[in-house]
Amino acid sequence: MTEKKQVVTVIGLGVIGGSYAMALKKLGYTVYGVDCDPDTVAKAKERGIADDAATSAEAFVPLSDIVVIALYPKQVEGELRKIRDLLKEGVVVTDVAGIKSHFTQKILALMPANTDFVFAHPMAGREKKGIDYADDRVFKGANFIITPSENNKKSSLETVERLAREMGFKNVMRLTPEQHDKIISFVSQLPHALAVALVNSDDRQFDTPRFVGDSYRDLTRIANINESLWSELFLGNKDNLLSSIREFEKCLDVLKEALENEDKETLEREFVRATKRRTEFNKEL
Amino acid sequence: MTEKKQVVTVIGLGVIGGSYAMALKKLGYTVYGVDCDPDTVAKAKERGIADDAATSAEAFVPLSDIVVIALYPKQVEGELRKIRDLLKEGVVVTDVAGIKSHFTQKILALMPANTDFVFAHPMAGREKKGIDYADDRVFKGANFIITPSENNKKSSLETVERLAREMGFKNVMRLTPEQHDKIISFVSQLPHALAVALVNSDDRQFDTPRFVGDSYRDLTRIANINESLWSELFLGNKDNLLSSIREFEKCLDVLKEALENEDKETLEREFVRATKRRTEFNKEL
Repeated sequence: MTEKKQVVTVIGLGVIGGSYAMALKKLGYTVYGVDCDPDTVAKAKERGIADDAATSAEAFVPLSDIVVIALYPKQVEGELRKIRDLLKEGVVVTDVAGIKSHFTQKILALMPANTDFVFAHPMAGREKKGIDYADDRVFKGANFIITPSENNKKSSLETVERLAREMGFKNVMRLTPEQHDKIISFVSQLPHALAVALVNSDDRQFDTPRFVGDSYRDLTRIANINESLWSELFLGNKDNLLSSIREFEKCLDVLKEALENEDKETLEREFVRATKRRTEFNKEL
Repeated sequence: MTEKKQVVTVIGLGVIGGSYAMALKKLGYTVYGVDCDPDTVAKAKERGIADDAATSAEAFVPLSDIVVIALYPKQVEGELRKIRDLLKEGVVVTDVAGIKSHFTQKILALMPANTDFVFAHPMAGREKKGIDYADDRVFKGANFIITPSENNKKSSLETVERLAREMGFKNVMRLTPEQHDKIISFVSQLPHALAVALVNSDDRQFDTPRFVGDSYRDLTRIANINESLWSELFLGNKDNLLSSIREFEKCLDVLKEALENEDKETLEREFVRATKRRTEFNKEL
């Protein structure tokens, strides 16, 4: 590419924001980092994660072609209120929130003329939080969902898609906010709910860790969960998640009843169905 | 070791039996393999998995110091009936079944004088079945449970423990059959039930594989499940598994109610509890 690389401000230098900054800096973008925590700002500068960093976005936003708000879902609106009057014409603002429907209209209503907000969800992360765990390798091969809004410019959507691909994401997909929240409740939130309930249901009569195999280890890895973020994600997607849980419970009930009735045929049928689906799934990945 | 290595017959050359044969042969034991499938027997010989192999145990058992019955739980009793009169004095017979209480008394009643049956459960395996997927590396660092019976000789228990450690198992533990079945219903069978129900509850409104992250992938890996073996394991441990499922459901209900009531405090408390447990657990491993 011969064109001059753009200027990006990343607001929030946690695992995701920090990883965005790392990845974009390596790609040659000019990257400014913002975080309310002075220690995080110092680390971002020391480690060269950003070209410059500060606790306020004020100096950086007016210079930026792209602004990434890498905060918890509930903080996005407040942050946008702070920076909206500083946005330069033609800027593309994007976010990383794991739920969309609850805030898209409010956010869009705040955007000044000649600016564009592209809602995005990078489907990557780590169990730990904070800049110390930022690592742009988590993006490699991961999925990235964009939920376009009616007024998004084609070029803005393409900018965010390009960033995603450059950072290493593999599948970059477009969904409506409603579709996004529905599928996310199934592929991401439901598994977290199951892992948490599994770990918490341990009666601890035995020293569990001494007896586990790979299955328990795999199923509970994500029970190590950031409680502030995930309670927000769960509550912000309440109806979809409740409906995913109910569908799951129906399938668990089929197994339970088959057990109670010693109905080997039904158990085998359910196992064959699961195996078939999981195998197709391996092929596609 | 200067003593002459012992002769081991492994009956059933699937993933587990095949891996036992591989591991023991590498360790210098004389290994005979038995499988009802002539193709499997041919492969075992061609690939040097066993020193000799046949579809019948008749020629091998009388020569063996150790006999491993690596069949499905329901087949163990029938196999023992076939070979019991061929067992040499002082032989140690062992199994690999994932459930114990349901058959220990029946098995013990069949054992001739001066022979000893040591019940064992190597907690390792693969999603695929058959000798083609045998691989002794799966034992590395895995857990191994022995459920001693009243009349087991100390030396027989030590023989099986030594085999386990030599093959690469890390924790070798002793439990009663009842304890074994209880803990297994929680750490192994419940995760399999959850993975199967999760995959089967997909309404497939979307092309799921395109949207999944690591969490769904990890939680559903074991939904790829051998239906004949696992329906037997589930039904053979029915009461324990049903009780583990019920305890899990109680914990899932806590999350569900918190969601319904938009009770962030309870959600956070449950997430903190799960994280704390899962973290302790990492330390111990």
